[in-house]
Amino acid sequence: MEDVRLLMLPGPVPLPERVCQAMMRQAINHRGPEFGAAYTESVAVLKECFGTENEVFILSGSGTAGMDAAISNFGKGKKIASLVNGKFGDRLYQIAARNGDATEIASEWGTPVDLAALEEALENGAEMVTMVHNETSAGILNPAKEVGRLARKHDALFVMDGVTSVGGDEVLVDEWGVDVAIVGSQKCLAAPAGLAAVTVSDRAWDRIVEDRPFYLDLAACRKSAHKEPMQTPYTPAVPLFLGLHEALMMIKEEGMEARVARHRRMSASVRAAVAAWGLEMFPQLDEHSAYSNTVTAVRMPEGVADVGGRVKQMGIEIAGGQDHLKGKIFRIGSMGAVSAPEILATLAAVQHALRKAGVAGVGDGVEAAAEVLNP
Amino acid sequence: MEDVRLLMLPGPVPLPERVCQAMMRQAINHRGPEFGAAYTESVAVLKECFGTENEVFILSGSGTAGMDAAISNFGKGKKIASLVNGKFGDRLYQIAARNGDATEIASEWGTPVDLAALEEALENGAEMVTMVHNETSAGILNPAKEVGRLARKHDALFVMDGVTSVGGDEVLVDEWGVDVAIVGSQKCLAAPAGLAAVTVSDRAWDRIVEDRPFYLDLAACRKSAHKEPMQTPYTPAVPLFLGLHEALMMIKEEGMEARVARHRRMSASVRAAVAAWGLEMFPQLDEHSAYSNTVTAVRMPEGVADVGGRVKQMGIEIAGGQDHLKGKIFRIGSMGAVSAPEILATLAAVQHALRKAGVAGVGDGVEAAAEVLNP
Repeated sequence: MEDVRLLMLPGPVPLPERVCQAMMRQAINHRGPEFGAAYTESVAVLKECFGTENEVFILSGSGTAGMDAAISNFGKGKKIASLVNGKFGDRLYQIAARNGDATEIASEWGTPVDLAALEEALENGAEMVTMVHNETSAGILNPAKEVGRLARKHDALFVMDGVTSVGGDEVLVDEWGVDVAIVGSQKCLAAPAGLAAVTVSDRAWDRIVEDRPFYLDLAACRKSAHKEPMQTPYTPAVPLFLGLHEALMMIKEEGMEARVARHRRMSASVRAAVAAWGLEMFPQLDEHSAYSNTVTAVRMPEGVADVGGRVKQMGIEIAGGQDHLKGKIFRIGSMGAVSAPEILATLAAVQHALRKAGVAGVGDGVEAAAEVLNP
Repeated sequence: MEDVRLLMLPGPVPLPERVCQAMMRQAINHRGPEFGAAYTESVAVLKECFGTENEVFILSGSGTAGMDAAISNFGKGKKIASLVNGKFGDRLYQIAARNGDATEIASEWGTPVDLAALEEALENGAEMVTMVHNETSAGILNPAKEVGRLARKHDALFVMDGVTSVGGDEVLVDEWGVDVAIVGSQKCLAAPAGLAAVTVSDRAWDRIVEDRPFYLDLAACRKSAHKEPMQTPYTPAVPLFLGLHEALMMIKEEGMEARVARHRRMSASVRAAVAAWGLEMFPQLDEHSAYSNTVTAVRMPEGVADVGGRVKQMGIEIAGGQDHLKGKIFRIGSMGAVSAPEILATLAAVQHALRKAGVAGVGDGVEAAAEVLNP
């Protein structure tokens, strides 16, 4: 057992007791009616999370498996334009480069994606656009609606990584014109790690490639999903499906609108604390981008090397920066089932760590956050 | 909740209480020391199960993900000879055909694999051989040692599906010259469904292809496994890792030798019942093949369409035949944590179903099995 009592990472997130309990179910036959019913009910709620009428499939693999499936099934051998302003945008680009003729449209991490360069790439024949909706590594929310509009205008497919937005923030796959969107189980859905869900538009199905991977073949997923009872092509990760099902029932009970409002309130409270501490948000926004509503990335104050270490001593794990942002930022996740107690505890610990690190003029961020949570 | 109380399928198998409990662990950081320790300890036991000193990696995906990884990482674009005498051999061939220039060496399901035709294919330049060790669909144990010898003789890689033998029956990867072997979590290991483990020889590493899949990239797995603490390249299915870890600790406590002996005793007791019932085993053996020690496939008695239906009414689920064997055979799994009570209950229910179906001369298979279990 680690001493960490509370995970405030941008995923994995703490699991509600009900979700843990659901995983404990004795092994069941995954070709039987109980599994089929859980899959069917799960898909109904996932459609609400995605904002889509398109079919949704659950893959036994992580969010990266979902991204790989999206790009390899629909982009293999094609011209792909990848918008990159953080680590996960880069991962999409890496997957695109393995599968097709990929162009990286790079912005500095945490700065807006380059829509002008995207339009140029589309004019030059890009057949697929990839973008991360909520770029976890930098705490920035990218302009899915604008990118969807540009992709449609140029008849390209739009693959959107919604791994850390779907189920927490507003996602409107159909309205925005997203062709393939992906979510991971261990983020805003507050389910155990190890599953991805993927939704696919009719436009994408019309363009599915012949040379598909075997395990991540989405045509095979669709074929099995149409069976009665609903199935997966190969043995699924049954306990995770049951855990995810329970997590989705909790989302249904809360209601998507209330859930999005809660996520926005939580992240707004964290941002209020950051302002009161006199610290700087990491992302630089333009009129199309916004701060993430599920993870807050904060520029490390000058002269401070680490904040998370002392926070961890208090039993709470927040995230640092990844790759070249290591030591440059810290990140506080506020996704999934978290509410006021977790936020207040975390902000109090971070505030203490900042003061102990000798940061000058650290105001009362905890009180500022409490005011947002309970005005 | 289904009314089935006891799964006697060739996987998934009933989960020990300890394994269910282990999955309930609250979410942990998969880049932290607790996860790393569980992965490291798991690998140590898996090496014993595989009979290898080679590295072992755990993939967040089903057994099919493991097979796909094996063939796509080491066989992409190569000449592959696939031995097929059942459904899972066919699956290996299907994966091989997606990835390379594949030749199917077909035998009727449940009859021995064709070693002469394999030698011919190797003489004609096959660079990889695929075979299922324990062909679950037909209840036959295929000659891994002979195939390993032939593959080495012709300098080809040998990919062996050990999904339903590793952890239950004797597997000697190093001694037999298996280059890549795969096991699934929900079979003999008695862990939850959703993970695969793969072991890779130095010969295979030397021949890894450039054009690898992204999610199932075994070079990326190796790179992350060498980190401290041990990691996976992408988010793993954490609860399943913890469940598998507990299942492997149970294997360590039992000891591999005792575990293999138990599996052999259980399947021998099922075969004794089949003989006492006057029924015929489905596999047809030669000097290189054997009956499976983890699943028993029985030819359906004449005039009987179904046995499993009535057995299910008694709360026990056995398996029928797959694809063209539907209605032709029934199969009793005896893998994982099962012992005498589950076997005796199952055989009593099957015996009753046979008698109710009007099969003539059904002897006391239950007593015959009990005699094997407790001589």
